[in-house]
Amino acid sequence: MHSRPLGISRRALLAGLAAVPVLSQLEGSTAWAQSESSVLPSWNDGPAKRTILNLVKRITDPASPEFVPPEARIATFDQDGTTWVEHPIYTQVVYCLDRVPAAVEAKPELRKIEPFNSVLSGNREAIAKLSMRDFEEIAAATLTGITVDEFKADVTKWITTAKHPRWNRLYTELIYQPMLEVMQYLRGYGYKTFIVTGGGQDFVRVYSKRVYGIPPWHVVGTAGGTKYSYGKDGKPFLTKEPKLLLNDNFAGKPEGIHLEIGLRPVIAFGNSTGDREMLEYTTAGKGARLGLLVLHDDAAREYAYGPARGLPDTKVGTFTQALYDEATNDGWQVISMKNDWKRIFPFESS
Amino acid sequence: MHSRPLGISRRALLAGLAAVPVLSQLEGSTAWAQSESSVLPSWNDGPAKRTILNLVKRITDPASPEFVPPEARIATFDQDGTTWVEHPIYTQVVYCLDRVPAAVEAKPELRKIEPFNSVLSGNREAIAKLSMRDFEEIAAATLTGITVDEFKADVTKWITTAKHPRWNRLYTELIYQPMLEVMQYLRGYGYKTFIVTGGGQDFVRVYSKRVYGIPPWHVVGTAGGTKYSYGKDGKPFLTKEPKLLLNDNFAGKPEGIHLEIGLRPVIAFGNSTGDREMLEYTTAGKGARLGLLVLHDDAAREYAYGPARGLPDTKVGTFTQALYDEATNDGWQVISMKNDWKRIFPFESS
Repeated sequence: MHSRPLGISRRALLAGLAAVPVLSQLEGSTAWAQSESSVLPSWNDGPAKRTILNLVKRITDPASPEFVPPEARIATFDQDGTTWVEHPIYTQVVYCLDRVPAAVEAKPELRKIEPFNSVLSGNREAIAKLSMRDFEEIAAATLTGITVDEFKADVTKWITTAKHPRWNRLYTELIYQPMLEVMQYLRGYGYKTFIVTGGGQDFVRVYSKRVYGIPPWHVVGTAGGTKYSYGKDGKPFLTKEPKLLLNDNFAGKPEGIHLEIGLRPVIAFGNSTGDREMLEYTTAGKGARLGLLVLHDDAAREYAYGPARGLPDTKVGTFTQALYDEATNDGWQVISMKNDWKRIFPFESS
Repeated sequence: MHSRPLGISRRALLAGLAAVPVLSQLEGSTAWAQSESSVLPSWNDGPAKRTILNLVKRITDPASPEFVPPEARIATFDQDGTTWVEHPIYTQVVYCLDRVPAAVEAKPELRKIEPFNSVLSGNREAIAKLSMRDFEEIAAATLTGITVDEFKADVTKWITTAKHPRWNRLYTELIYQPMLEVMQYLRGYGYKTFIVTGGGQDFVRVYSKRVYGIPPWHVVGTAGGTKYSYGKDGKPFLTKEPKLLLNDNFAGKPEGIHLEIGLRPVIAFGNSTGDREMLEYTTAGKGARLGLLVLHDDAAREYAYGPARGLPDTKVGTFTQALYDEATNDGWQVISMKNDWKRIFPFESS
């Protein structure tokens, strides 16, 4: 499980030990002890928390050989399964399905054809059998052909009303409190925090500031082209086009990071094979770097899936054995939701 | 150091308290008048400066009906001709021409064919006659097929050595002091400042922080795709591909702003027809907005070009009569370099 600490650990441990006397001198050992237990309060005092604190220590201490100047402190976070719940189905897919009636109203010819017919019928079995190609068609029909302002207004409304079936709560309530704490903690040390999601960039930007404290321009995601044109009143507007510019998954993640950030991250969080290349790219950089993977191993409080731990495989957010092996070999930190997190959601009592 | 979050908030708190009386003073009318003459010191007290100060006042005063919250304060700046010299030839085109020998060395078959033959010959007349299509071929040959790290290293070297023929100074010295002051002034009021350039995104990002105080992820520009692959050592890298993702000119500017910023600017600076759509898009937004165009009408201190004022037309950065008419009709502010700017370059004595 947390077999990981080995790679980074050795260096980390040495750096940590070296820092102790400096710390004691500067801050007093009592102050340090207090501060370590008060940061990341929803994290258990396990290997994942220690690895994060240790990295920040090594990077932000000007006396450290691994010091990184503030302008290079980039932290990236996958969203689905890393900062919020992705089961039983990606939130944005739920949104697309919910938008099908409006899309069919705008284009009535869709009513008679698949996959729209199945979605409109509400037949759960048929919906569960939709292929990736079906979803692409649904995405194209529901996410394009409208102005960016219309899309934003629609998502704004949906995201403040639609609820997750298991908890009967807004999807934005189902974010992981420990990850919010990490974001705040890193920002406190001058890190810029970015969402780098396979989900739609325009979708996540609607709520990123309110939910994560991350402004729209720090959200990288799957993105389509837009088209600039003028209305009858002469005013310009942008329409979402069915043209894919960036598929922000797999190799698309480092490519998207280069396109929209332009610097290699120092620390990257993911949870599935779609994040593999982002973690590879991050940790291949010079100096201290860290990749982390959230393992969903807590069926009672959230979900348990991913064949890496003998958990069931699912279509969503696959944490494969191969990814687990790469994590072990490359010294990435696996975060066990069950063991590393005291609390999962903000609404749970702390 | 390790309890830095505490240290920071204590310092921040003290700084905040200390600032209170200063602020009260500044808000008094005398202080305001003083501050008005001390801000933007390289600007004459003319219509352009007054328009900028007025917009900031209306937007940042919480009592103003046009108040804009800090998270929506976006300012965008074109680069060539807006924040630095674009004559007699775009800096990045000079870079591409300088890179031709290296590109030919890597691909010897280019030596015999045009436009590479002409460029290698150093024949100025032939180079001056190169078409847009020729430049596209040169750009493809010199800007792609190398890793993003190699490109960054090459530009880093070039930009700190290549000099502008007229002033015999680095191109990064030929930035406009008044625009640097506007950027700093706006950032002081919580604005996020972005470069939105028709030039290459990867190129500008190399020096944007050092020269403009703008980090790489706040640079939007013409961008090609990259490809993720692995070296023999198993380490991943990104290669620049000859595939255009964003042509950040004309309608591409608002499209690029949507792609990489995700919010409509409040204030946008440009100088040519390539900035028209950015200014249209900016000023068509709700509430107080402002578009500004730099007019190059100062042959003595810089250059004079653009048919809008009866100045000669050129291939570079065209400020047409149609653009001038649109500026007048839409209330965009024209900045006269001759009349509005006391000083053009940082190296000139103030």
